[in-house]
Amino acid sequence: MTDWLDRIKWDAQGLVPVIAQEQRTGDVLMFAWMNREALQKTAELGRAVYYSRSRGRLWVKGEESGHVQQVHEIRLDCDDDVVLLKVTQLGHEPGIACHTGRHSCFYQRLDTQRGQWQAVDPVLKAPETIYR
Amino acid sequence: MTDWLDRIKWDAQGLVPVIAQEQRTGDVLMFAWMNREALQKTAELGRAVYYSRSRGRLWVKGEESGHVQQVHEIRLDCDDDVVLLKVTQLGHEPGIACHTGRHSCFYQRLDTQRGQWQAVDPVLKAPETIYR
Repeated sequence: MTDWLDRIKWDAQGLVPVIAQEQRTGDVLMFAWMNREALQKTAELGRAVYYSRSRGRLWVKGEESGHVQQVHEIRLDCDDDVVLLKVTQLGHEPGIACHTGRHSCFYQRLDTQRGQWQAVDPVLKAPETIYR
Repeated sequence: MTDWLDRIKWDAQGLVPVIAQEQRTGDVLMFAWMNREALQKTAELGRAVYYSRSRGRLWVKGEESGHVQQVHEIRLDCDDDVVLLKVTQLGHEPGIACHTGRHSCFYQRLDTQRGQWQAVDPVLKAPETIYR
């Protein structure tokens, strides 16, 4: 019953890009990568398991921080090469997906007038209290 | 005034992954890539300009289909290597971002019981009437 994994067009490194979106709010929380094993585990566990390119291993989201992602839906795009997860970000209310202690990783907004990136979303929890 | 482009960690091909999200609904519409020139043009024009890896050139979203993306916000993630656009998908109501004539490219949902991908969102306009 893993034929569905063959449908995916894995890249040259055997990875697929993954977008995690908060189901309740629609907020885009983060972007990461999965290999075949990570996606299979994500589907089995109903919790997001990514592949860390820097560490070269599977990475159960929340394994250190407790900020686990409960997965409600797994979607695939028209080209079969990008995955979208609909999740509930657990462990804190509101959810913290970002290692900076913010809700979403996409907290920098371009000020097109000034040509500057600005951090526009608050830190909900100090990172040093998340990772000990 | 293009210092903000230097902030981005372009990959080995000089590209950055981009997520387009519909501002009004929060729906994730599509995923594509930009090079430096594409992102600069996107900011200047207020319309999404991507880089087509298959065609090896800039691709003004909607240049053939008329399904232009008006860009309201450009966001960058915590690692400076993924861009999120908040857009209005023009040219059809509801918006059509996908080349299959669907609202979003992420129309395939995994049925975890059956281990099958299922197309769960409707075709809003026949592709052969979009691209002539």
